[in-house]
Amino acid sequence: MDWLKIFRTEKKNSAQTAKDRLMVAVAYQREGRMNGPNYLPQMREEILAVVRKYIRVPDDSVHFNVQREDGLEVLELNITLPEDAPR
Amino acid sequence: MDWLKIFRTEKKNSAQTAKDRLMVAVAYQREGRMNGPNYLPQMREEILAVVRKYIRVPDDSVHFNVQREDGLEVLELNITLPEDAPR
Repeated sequence: MDWLKIFRTEKKNSAQTAKDRLMVAVAYQREGRMNGPNYLPQMREEILAVVRKYIRVPDDSVHFNVQREDGLEVLELNITLPEDAPR
Repeated sequence: MDWLKIFRTEKKNSAQTAKDRLMVAVAYQREGRMNGPNYLPQMREEILAVVRKYIRVPDDSVHFNVQREDGLEVLELNITLPEDAPR
């Protein structure tokens, strides 16, 4: 998948081009029409915990988005980094 | 970002449509031309550790891909799930 193209496009469309951003997408693609497995929400929480361990940002800088359709479930995590965030 | 569209397209293009898949993308978008911060590789390792805690798969089922260009760095993690994987 050409992720550079995907995120480059996103960058152009975003009003927040002046700040660094971290984006995490977790997608579960299931054969058939059922949703993802039961552990997905917990796994996402732990992934978020890892991210927050490294990047301390205020809650309102973190945006979640879950998208679902038959057999496909995607969590998007979008973090706008403050200029004084530890790097 | 319309993740469903992105992953739906990926699914159509993949030969592995008969199995469940988990995809994780971590993108760091930096203002200017430098690469992402030093903690990125370590953070990715820990995210992978979380994923592997929930999904026990053989090493050859896990595919990494890092894409880089000026100011943008994306790690893609693509896991084909065996049919007997814990869910």
